[in-house]
Amino acid sequence: MRKYNGIKVIAFDADDTLWVNETYFREAENKFASLLNKYETENKIHQELYKKEIKNLKIYGYGVKGFVLSMIECALEISNYNVKQEVINEVLGIGKRMLDEPIELLDNIEEVLKQLQGEFKLIVVTKGDLLDQERKLEKSGILKYFHHVEVLSEKKPEDYKKLINRLDMKPSELLMIGNSLKSDVLPLLEIGASAIHIPFHTTWEHETITTEEKKNMSYQTFSNIKDILPVLK
Amino acid sequence: MRKYNGIKVIAFDADDTLWVNETYFREAENKFASLLNKYETENKIHQELYKKEIKNLKIYGYGVKGFVLSMIECALEISNYNVKQEVINEVLGIGKRMLDEPIELLDNIEEVLKQLQGEFKLIVVTKGDLLDQERKLEKSGILKYFHHVEVLSEKKPEDYKKLINRLDMKPSELLMIGNSLKSDVLPLLEIGASAIHIPFHTTWEHETITTEEKKNMSYQTFSNIKDILPVLK
Repeated sequence: MRKYNGIKVIAFDADDTLWVNETYFREAENKFASLLNKYETENKIHQELYKKEIKNLKIYGYGVKGFVLSMIECALEISNYNVKQEVINEVLGIGKRMLDEPIELLDNIEEVLKQLQGEFKLIVVTKGDLLDQERKLEKSGILKYFHHVEVLSEKKPEDYKKLINRLDMKPSELLMIGNSLKSDVLPLLEIGASAIHIPFHTTWEHETITTEEKKNMSYQTFSNIKDILPVLK
Repeated sequence: MRKYNGIKVIAFDADDTLWVNETYFREAENKFASLLNKYETENKIHQELYKKEIKNLKIYGYGVKGFVLSMIECALEISNYNVKQEVINEVLGIGKRMLDEPIELLDNIEEVLKQLQGEFKLIVVTKGDLLDQERKLEKSGILKYFHHVEVLSEKKPEDYKKLINRLDMKPSELLMIGNSLKSDVLPLLEIGASAIHIPFHTTWEHETITTEEKKNMSYQTFSNIKDILPVLK
């Protein structure tokens, strides 16, 4: 199809594009709120945890370990330092279970990778904990389809530019596919690459964007990853 | 010099090779032990913390965030879940301060990089938290000397092999310089690359090796990084 002429490299986001991720964070947040509901309404606990995560993002970055540290800090503050030590231990347990979660591939992922692998160079571009992302790819069974895996600490236009230089390609040769408009679509369009949006049913508040931010941006949205095949092949 | 004939790429470990790192962990451990010394001898606390770190290494990986999570778990257990909530908060603070520590370059680092940069391709190969390592390099002021930065989750022979392939070089063209025999020297020799050992005054117990492991391995040890100049130039 004309729109994607000249594409040589297809980059896939990982969390909530290749496999389920945000669902585990939602479950963890709910569990956390229920552990502390004697101190505050669960709604307020969700709000405070989110504020804490955003405040700590600069120092901890993305990923489960920083999330757990923010939960502990939030539990101490919400309870006015009365939270039981056993609850802190349960929060540590929530994190360890998240890091050991099985990988649940999203529908049709493997089929799509199989069909694209001969014609395009496929790569993964994700952010988060290096070890955790490597482990998830290892467990996913789909590592074999990818030429390259890149774990970034941020997904800003600058980060994609560096990646494009490092992999020795032109922006016009790159198509990114992901569930986050903020991280996987808009920064790519900004630097002259292409992007396709495949929404996941839940998006972390931090990854949502305003209508203002996406005006004048042109990209396609598909509900299922297999819908990219007819426009690419 | 003959020994290093054919070297094109010099890889530097970062923590305790380019800048001080282990010292901050030692200080954090001492602070942690003093916070808990009503429950156990400080010596025992050091031992238990080390055990906890090693046990969690597989799930948390290297770096400050996993270290803090292990300290919290250890504090709960050592105190039989009696540790004060304020102490948990202090442990979180130890971690945040570590992540915000200024970078203290080791002696002569910049001088050495300056002298080598024209003749060799210089890279950084480190393990730990991606964001934390990037931030340290950024703050260090020496990022400009390096062609490439690689943050690995492990430094086993396999990891170095993958790196060599990715950077399109031969093992014989690579010289690694670092403070850890286990991570920066032996795995390189094992895959046919070269390595120079520059010890730091303190080494994390996990990075130490036995005499048995290093037998038949041939490498040079220098006490200061500037001593590599005469053998390379």
